[in-house]
Amino acid sequence: MTVTTDETFAALGDPTRVELVLRLSRGAASVSELAEPYDMSLRAVLKHVQLLEHAGIVRTAKHGRVRRCELDRRGIDAVGKWIDDVRRRWERRLDRLDQYVTEREGK
Amino acid sequence: MTVTTDETFAALGDPTRVELVLRLSRGAASVSELAEPYDMSLRAVLKHVQLLEHAGIVRTAKHGRVRRCELDRRGIDAVGKWIDDVRRRWERRLDRLDQYVTEREGK
Repeated sequence: MTVTTDETFAALGDPTRVELVLRLSRGAASVSELAEPYDMSLRAVLKHVQLLEHAGIVRTAKHGRVRRCELDRRGIDAVGKWIDDVRRRWERRLDRLDQYVTEREGK
Repeated sequence: MTVTTDETFAALGDPTRVELVLRLSRGAASVSELAEPYDMSLRAVLKHVQLLEHAGIVRTAKHGRVRRCELDRRGIDAVGKWIDDVRRRWERRLDRLDQYVTEREGK
């Protein structure tokens, strides 16, 4: 399944999911551990986790009755690459503008 | 107005807005220019632009009857920084795990 950039961004477009990703960046956790700080059912937290999983940002594996969650590097890297590309293009554009102005002033 | 990380991500969580940001990374454009490739009313494109503007990703300025749009570095940089932080923490975590395993094996 290919996840588009906007789908990955949409998965991150929620305050709880942003917090879950920050939490998982400090290490893997079970769904119950992830749910601890929240006044939310396990089912609700699991839904957030599954949304992040579909977007390729988190992966989970079941060990007995415990679902262990960890960051999935692919989704995070894909978003990082997109942002870097936007920044790079934009800087190239500014450099070209700068060069153009310098050349005109030189004439 | 402070924009939260999830609000910025939510603004990017749409295929048209992802394309608009890519288009603007190649240079500033008017709303009409942005609308050209789409089978969409100017009003609909303007709504997308305004959503990106509220999220601090795009800024616009009116020159007569033309609204000129360009990328706003602040929003893009904020998202980039967040992604970099997540990656960095996660790598530190992996490094610590690696060190722990090496130390245990050394005993």
